[in-house]
Amino acid sequence: MDIKDTRTIYLDCDTGIDDSLALAFLLAAPGTDLVGIGAVSGNVSAAQGAQNTLDLLELAGRGDIPVAIGAHDPLAGHFDGGVPHIHGDNGIGNIKLHPAQATTTGTSAAELLISLSHDHPGELSIVAIGPLTNIALALAIDPSLPTRIKDVTIMGGAALVAGNVSPVAEANIWNDPEAAALTLAARWDLTLVPLDVTLENILEEEQRVALEESPIPVVSSIGRILDFYFDFYVGLYGRRASAMHDPLAAAIATGAIIPTNAPRVAIEVDTTRGPGRGQTICDLRGQRMGPVDQPGAHCRVVLGTDIPLPPVLVEHLLAYKIPAER
Amino acid sequence: MDIKDTRTIYLDCDTGIDDSLALAFLLAAPGTDLVGIGAVSGNVSAAQGAQNTLDLLELAGRGDIPVAIGAHDPLAGHFDGGVPHIHGDNGIGNIKLHPAQATTTGTSAAELLISLSHDHPGELSIVAIGPLTNIALALAIDPSLPTRIKDVTIMGGAALVAGNVSPVAEANIWNDPEAAALTLAARWDLTLVPLDVTLENILEEEQRVALEESPIPVVSSIGRILDFYFDFYVGLYGRRASAMHDPLAAAIATGAIIPTNAPRVAIEVDTTRGPGRGQTICDLRGQRMGPVDQPGAHCRVVLGTDIPLPPVLVEHLLAYKIPAER
Repeated sequence: MDIKDTRTIYLDCDTGIDDSLALAFLLAAPGTDLVGIGAVSGNVSAAQGAQNTLDLLELAGRGDIPVAIGAHDPLAGHFDGGVPHIHGDNGIGNIKLHPAQATTTGTSAAELLISLSHDHPGELSIVAIGPLTNIALALAIDPSLPTRIKDVTIMGGAALVAGNVSPVAEANIWNDPEAAALTLAARWDLTLVPLDVTLENILEEEQRVALEESPIPVVSSIGRILDFYFDFYVGLYGRRASAMHDPLAAAIATGAIIPTNAPRVAIEVDTTRGPGRGQTICDLRGQRMGPVDQPGAHCRVVLGTDIPLPPVLVEHLLAYKIPAER
Repeated sequence: MDIKDTRTIYLDCDTGIDDSLALAFLLAAPGTDLVGIGAVSGNVSAAQGAQNTLDLLELAGRGDIPVAIGAHDPLAGHFDGGVPHIHGDNGIGNIKLHPAQATTTGTSAAELLISLSHDHPGELSIVAIGPLTNIALALAIDPSLPTRIKDVTIMGGAALVAGNVSPVAEANIWNDPEAAALTLAARWDLTLVPLDVTLENILEEEQRVALEESPIPVVSSIGRILDFYFDFYVGLYGRRASAMHDPLAAAIATGAIIPTNAPRVAIEVDTTRGPGRGQTICDLRGQRMGPVDQPGAHCRVVLGTDIPLPPVLVEHLLAYKIPAER
């Protein structure tokens, strides 16, 4: 990345422990201008996720960034209550943050996204790290949205590794397969960041402790929030550590991490009620001799990156400076 | 393997170039007694596959082994005509073999399998290297079949690699997903040998030439048959070579190759009409710290083996001795 280029970003999230890290990364990363945030139900309800986001923003001195509550339910069916055993009852590891003074916009997340796309035509990047309900709703309200969006980066799916909700489905896609199908079919420049790479970017306990010991309140809070998440991941990695799902998508969107193996291929979301529901079916046939773009494909799936994210993430967070009064 | 133990084998196949190699391997492998063969439509029609099998057996001096024509059509739908661009119009690379004197049994493959299971109760191993129609029909005719079968080894499916017919489906399963679902659900000791490992066992051109130059007619014929297959695989591997799909399943069934990473896990076949149709959905969550059997799972999926097959295969074939008049 040429960090002189500013990236203008709308974040859609279900905050969430790793969402909190992704949010902090977007605030801390050089050349990144986070102009709006929508919340969606996933790890927690959209309303809880929005409150967590507001509280973290205020701790970071960024209460000026607009936050909208998005969809409570997926396009089909109902919000399932989230995953308190992974993210805590409140989504942020049961850590209590000081309630923010700022409140949500009053508009929906889809409306906020559409509005921002008009404010920054051709410049706005979408970073979506929760279920894709808000993005699909925005597309439904305004099918011309993709013409004003620079690019879309999504944390979601599993290409050649097991899923984390079903044997083949990853949580963000599983929670709203219909929305994912609509979002991946839309004609924008889309990057899918699946479990294949997020599970390989592992934050270790000593890195978590470094965050917790930071004198910057938002950074130390995130270090404490991560404690709960690390307990959950012992079952997966055999040690206190955690995957960097959402932060990796954020870091790829900002250019801090560069995909090295990321072919553009046909990606279909399984929206059947069969055993494959929620799978991101990536057509990775013909890739044995190296990444090859399929003619006509507009989605790239990230299978490898240039450098590990965790050291970059920790470095940026520890260097974060709360801005002067805005 | 303790080669003093004889393995009694029923082979179900759609002969087919790599089927021909698997057949030759089962004739040549020490401690292996091939007692019957059923043909099924897949690479070619069941009738063509049976004729190819008879012709190869006669060349090998084993016209005594009974061959039955099995199902022409899958359980649902119709035979699609096979894959002449991969296996040649006749299934054996357009090489003309001398027509066998022996003829097929007159019974169906399912009937032959059931009959052999009574002849060898508790001793019979099934090696299935085509679509699973005949096996599913045998189960439908006689649900007690699994109680008399020692074990089942299937070449089929793709666990954590791309499919070869659709992005997620491998040809044998794709050609009859309903039969595969019934076969994998039956309560027998089942080993699935998917593309994950078969694509890693690559026969090279110099090995093919060694077979072609053998003085043993059946072996040299197989070397010539492989020539067509090698042309197809240039697109996949970038050189003349070929995957050893069916021979690997045969070698695992005989014990010549030992699976080293082969957890027993839930395996579900996608029988929807959605984009995942024909996928073997293996539940490989929780395998990050090494292979772990899931409680209650009766199917193992082979993800790694002890040694490469091709040298073993070539060695056995070059050492084959046509038996004296039987």
